[in-house]
Amino acid sequence: MTRDRLTLYDTTLRDGQQTQGVQFSTPEKHLIAAALDRLGVDYIEGGWPGANPTDSDFFADAPQTRATFTAFGMTKRAGRSAENDEVLAGVLNAGTRAVCLVGKTHDFHVTTALGITLGDNLDNIAKSVAHVVAQGREALFDAEHFFDGYKANPDYALACCKAAHEAGARWIVLCDTNGGALPAEVSRITRAVIAAGIPGDRLGIHTHDDTGNAVANSLAAVDAGARQVQGTLNGLGERCGNANLTTLIPTLLLKEPYRSRFETGVSEAALRGLVKTSRMLDDILNRVPLRSAPYVGASAFAHKAGLHASAILKDPATYEHVPPETVGNARIVPMSNQAGQSNLRERLRDMGLAVPEKADLGRILERIKTREADGYSYDTAQASFELEARRELGLMPGFFEVERYRATVERRRDARGNPVHLSEVTVVVNIAGERHLSVSEGIMADGSDGGPVHALSKALMKDLGPYQDLIGDMELVDFKVRITNGGTEARTRVVIDHEDSLGRRWSTVGVSSNIIDASFEALLDAVLWKLVSDGARVPGAA
Amino acid sequence: MTRDRLTLYDTTLRDGQQTQGVQFSTPEKHLIAAALDRLGVDYIEGGWPGANPTDSDFFADAPQTRATFTAFGMTKRAGRSAENDEVLAGVLNAGTRAVCLVGKTHDFHVTTALGITLGDNLDNIAKSVAHVVAQGREALFDAEHFFDGYKANPDYALACCKAAHEAGARWIVLCDTNGGALPAEVSRITRAVIAAGIPGDRLGIHTHDDTGNAVANSLAAVDAGARQVQGTLNGLGERCGNANLTTLIPTLLLKEPYRSRFETGVSEAALRGLVKTSRMLDDILNRVPLRSAPYVGASAFAHKAGLHASAILKDPATYEHVPPETVGNARIVPMSNQAGQSNLRERLRDMGLAVPEKADLGRILERIKTREADGYSYDTAQASFELEARRELGLMPGFFEVERYRATVERRRDARGNPVHLSEVTVVVNIAGERHLSVSEGIMADGSDGGPVHALSKALMKDLGPYQDLIGDMELVDFKVRITNGGTEARTRVVIDHEDSLGRRWSTVGVSSNIIDASFEALLDAVLWKLVSDGARVPGAA
Repeated sequence: MTRDRLTLYDTTLRDGQQTQGVQFSTPEKHLIAAALDRLGVDYIEGGWPGANPTDSDFFADAPQTRATFTAFGMTKRAGRSAENDEVLAGVLNAGTRAVCLVGKTHDFHVTTALGITLGDNLDNIAKSVAHVVAQGREALFDAEHFFDGYKANPDYALACCKAAHEAGARWIVLCDTNGGALPAEVSRITRAVIAAGIPGDRLGIHTHDDTGNAVANSLAAVDAGARQVQGTLNGLGERCGNANLTTLIPTLLLKEPYRSRFETGVSEAALRGLVKTSRMLDDILNRVPLRSAPYVGASAFAHKAGLHASAILKDPATYEHVPPETVGNARIVPMSNQAGQSNLRERLRDMGLAVPEKADLGRILERIKTREADGYSYDTAQASFELEARRELGLMPGFFEVERYRATVERRRDARGNPVHLSEVTVVVNIAGERHLSVSEGIMADGSDGGPVHALSKALMKDLGPYQDLIGDMELVDFKVRITNGGTEARTRVVIDHEDSLGRRWSTVGVSSNIIDASFEALLDAVLWKLVSDGARVPGAA
Repeated sequence: MTRDRLTLYDTTLRDGQQTQGVQFSTPEKHLIAAALDRLGVDYIEGGWPGANPTDSDFFADAPQTRATFTAFGMTKRAGRSAENDEVLAGVLNAGTRAVCLVGKTHDFHVTTALGITLGDNLDNIAKSVAHVVAQGREALFDAEHFFDGYKANPDYALACCKAAHEAGARWIVLCDTNGGALPAEVSRITRAVIAAGIPGDRLGIHTHDDTGNAVANSLAAVDAGARQVQGTLNGLGERCGNANLTTLIPTLLLKEPYRSRFETGVSEAALRGLVKTSRMLDDILNRVPLRSAPYVGASAFAHKAGLHASAILKDPATYEHVPPETVGNARIVPMSNQAGQSNLRERLRDMGLAVPEKADLGRILERIKTREADGYSYDTAQASFELEARRELGLMPGFFEVERYRATVERRRDARGNPVHLSEVTVVVNIAGERHLSVSEGIMADGSDGGPVHALSKALMKDLGPYQDLIGDMELVDFKVRITNGGTEARTRVVIDHEDSLGRRWSTVGVSSNIIDASFEALLDAVLWKLVSDGARVPGAA
C-alpha cells in the first residue's frame, strides 16, 4: 500500500515568537531555521516581514533552506486593492517562495473585530490570495477561528475557505485560534469541510493547547483527512502554545496507524536528533527543559516505580511504548535497584573506569544517594558524578588543596559620589607543600562588574603552578542556580559548564546554603575534571 | 435533561509521587489531601500503605475527608490465598472505605513480568477483589496495560475486567499504563468493553501523557461511556505524567458537550480556586509553575499578538475560549499598547494610587519596559512594580539612603583543621543625616551557615532607627534566583518574598551581574514597600 504524504509546517519563528517572554534575535532565527531544515519539516514560516525590525532583517538575509521558506501576513484591508495594500506588499517584497495569509472566517469577528461586511471579507480573501498567486508564489490561507466560525455560521466559514481555494490557494489551513476546540469537534468539522468539496490534500490544521488537546486535535484532523500539520518546536506559542511538533513528529513516524499510512520529510536518522533539537531551542531561550515532555523530556523514559523498573530489566517493551533511542533519548532506571547497578556499570565504563566489583558499585550508589538527599543532582553534572565515583574508588589524585578563600562584594560611592561595585577574591592553594596565593577582581572585559563567581573563577585559575598550562584553555560558558528548598532553609545548587579548546563541554555541581560556596565547589570540580581528563601528574608522584 | 454524574478520582498522592524528583512528606500529603477535598474530587488515593514509611505514616493518621479516602495496592500473588497475602493485608489494614487494586490484564505481562499462567492471574484478580468486598470495603480494580492488552488479546483482557466486575468491584479502571494509546484506540476499545457487558457507570479511565494525549484519551473514554476519570493535580506522575485534572476539570465543567451532559462534585466556587490549588502544589514541590499550562498557567490568558490584544479590548470572547476568572486566573495584555494602558490604570488603582494622567502612564510604561529589557520581571514582583510606579510619579518618600555595604564570604580551617565558613555583612544607612552602621554574620538558628543573603537581610534590618518598629515583623520566606542570559554575560535576577504579622506576602526583584547585589536590591525594595504600605513618616518631614 502506498503511503500518503503528510506535510509538516513549522511556525516556531512566527507563532512561537508569540510566547510570553520570547523574542528571537535575527541570528537565533537563523540557528533555529537551520535546525528545522536538518529535522526535515516541509515549510518554515519565518515571521511577518514588515511587522517588526527583527523579522524584516531576517527576511532581508533569508536562510537557504531545503524546506519552503514562507512569509506570513494578513489578507488585504477592505477599501483598497491587493496591489495597494502596503502591509501585503511588505510581505510579498520578502520574495519568499510561499506566502501564508491569515484571514477571518468567523462572522462575529468580521463584524466585531474588523467592523466590515461579510461580503467585503470574502472579497479580501479572494483578491489577496489571487494577488499572491499572480506573483508566481505559492499561497496558503490560514482560516482564523475556523472551528468557532463553523459552529456559529457553517455556511459563511465554508464560503471563506472556498474563496481562498478557488482563488488558487495551495493549502487552506483550519485554525483553532483561541485553542477552545475539542477533538470530537475538530474531527466532525474537518470531515464536513472535505464533504463540502475542499480535498483533504489541500487542508491543513493549526491548533493551540488551551484545553491540553493541541496534539489530539491535530491527530483528529489528520484522521479526518487533513494532510498538513502546523506546529512549533517544544510547543512554543501564544498563551498555552501551539501543537507541539516535538511530540507530533515521533507519534506520526513511530506509532500506528500513522507509521504505516503516512510518509513525511523527516528521516529516522533526523528523528534520532530530536532531543538535541529540542534542547538547542531551550538553550537559546535559556529555558529549563521540561522534564515531563513526551518523547524528549529527561523523565520521558524514567522508571521510578519499583515494579516498573524490575519489569524493564526483563523486557523494556513492558513499560515503554517506543524505544527511547528512536528519538535520541535514554532510559533512566533508579540506581537504587538491580537495574540501576547495570546502568551505573555502563556509565563508569563510558568514563574509561575499569568496571568495579559489585561492592564498589553499592558504595558509589550509596554516596550518590546521600549527596542527592543533600540537594546535589547528577542528571546533567556528569563531570562531578565521575569525580565522586573516582573518590569512592580511591582513583582521585590529590592534585592540590584549597587552604582558604575569601570573597568580598562591596558597593559604595567614590569621591565624586558615583556608585562603585567591587568583587574581590583571594584564594590560597597548596600544591605539593607549596602555597600559591592569588587575588582577583570581578571586573569583566567590558568594564562591568562580573560578580563574585567570575572573580572566584579568575582567582582559582590564576596560579595553579604545574597545572597552569592544562587549565589555560578552560572557559566558563554557563552558570545555573537553583534553590532546592523553599524559604529560609534554602540550599543553593549551582551548575557550571565549561568548554576547552578541544571543544569538550563539561558540567559540574556544587551545593551549599551559601551561593558563593556552592559556586566555588562547582568551579573546583571543573578544574579537577579537566586535570583528570588530561592526565595531569601530581608533582613528586611516581 | 438530567445530567449524568461523572466521578473524579485523584491519584496525586500515589501515582503523582512517581514523578522523578517528587517525594512528599507526610505533612505535605495532609496539605494536598485537604486541598483536593476542598476542590471536590470524589476519591483521594492516598498511597500504598505498607510500601514505604511515608505512606504507612500517612494512613496511620488518615485525613478526615468528605471524598472517599482510598488505599492502593496490588492483587494477591499466586500460590497463596488473599487472606494470607501480607502485602494485601497491609493495604486492608489501613482501614480505608475504598481499596483500589492493580492487576495485570495484558497476557504478555502475565507471562513475562509475573511468570504465572493466565488462569492464575484471573484467579488472583477475582479472589483479591472478593476479599476486599468481603471486608465490607468498596473495591476498585485498576486494569493495568489494558489497552495494549486488549490489542494483543481482547478476550483475555476482557476476561480480567469481567473477573473483577463479577467479584464485586464497584469500578473497573481501564489503565493506559505505558501511555502509548491514542485517542481513537481508547474510544474504540472503551466502546468494546461496554458492548461486552461492563456498564459505563462502572468504568473508569486512567491515562498517561507519553504521547501528549492524556487529556484527550480521558475525554475519548468519557465520550465512549466511561464515568470515572482518574488523574493528578498539575499532571504529576511517572515519566510524562498522568492525565492533568487541573486541565480536565475546567473542560468538563465549562465546555460543551460536557457542561450540559455531566455533573461532578466540583462547584463553580471551587473551580475559581483552581489556580490557587495548582500553585500550592508547585510551592510544596518548589517547582516553577508552568506558564503555558492550560487554564491555570500565568500565560494561559496572556495576549501578546498586537491584533489579538486590540480585539480583546473590543470583546474578550474574541480570543478567549473561557473567561479567565472562572478558574481564578487573570487576563494579561501587553502594557505596550492601548489595552495595556487601561490595564495599568487598573493596577495602580488597586494599589491605592490616584489614577494618573495619560502622560504619566506612558512614562511609567517606558520605565518598566526599560527595566524589563535589563532583566527585571514584574509578573510576580508586584511590590517592586508599585515602588517603580511611585518613583516615576514622585510619590516615593526618601526614607533612608544606603551609603555602602560590604559582604564577605570566607572558607578556611580553624586551629584544629576543621573547615569554617563565614559570611559577614556590613551596611551603612543614612537616615535624615544620621549614619547607622550595622554588621551581621550569616549564621542561622541551627548553627549552619545561612550564606551572604541571609547576612545581608539581617544587617539591613538590624538598625533602621525610627523605622525599626515597623519592620520588626518582616520575615524572609522565599528566595528565587534566575540567570536571565546564558554564559558569561549572565545577569542574575533575584526575587524575594516576605511576610509580615498581618499575613501579607509581597515579592520584590533585583537584577545585577552580581548575585549579591541583586539580592540586596530586592531586600531593599522589600523594606521600602513595607514602610510605604504601613505609612511610615520620614523623620523631620512635614
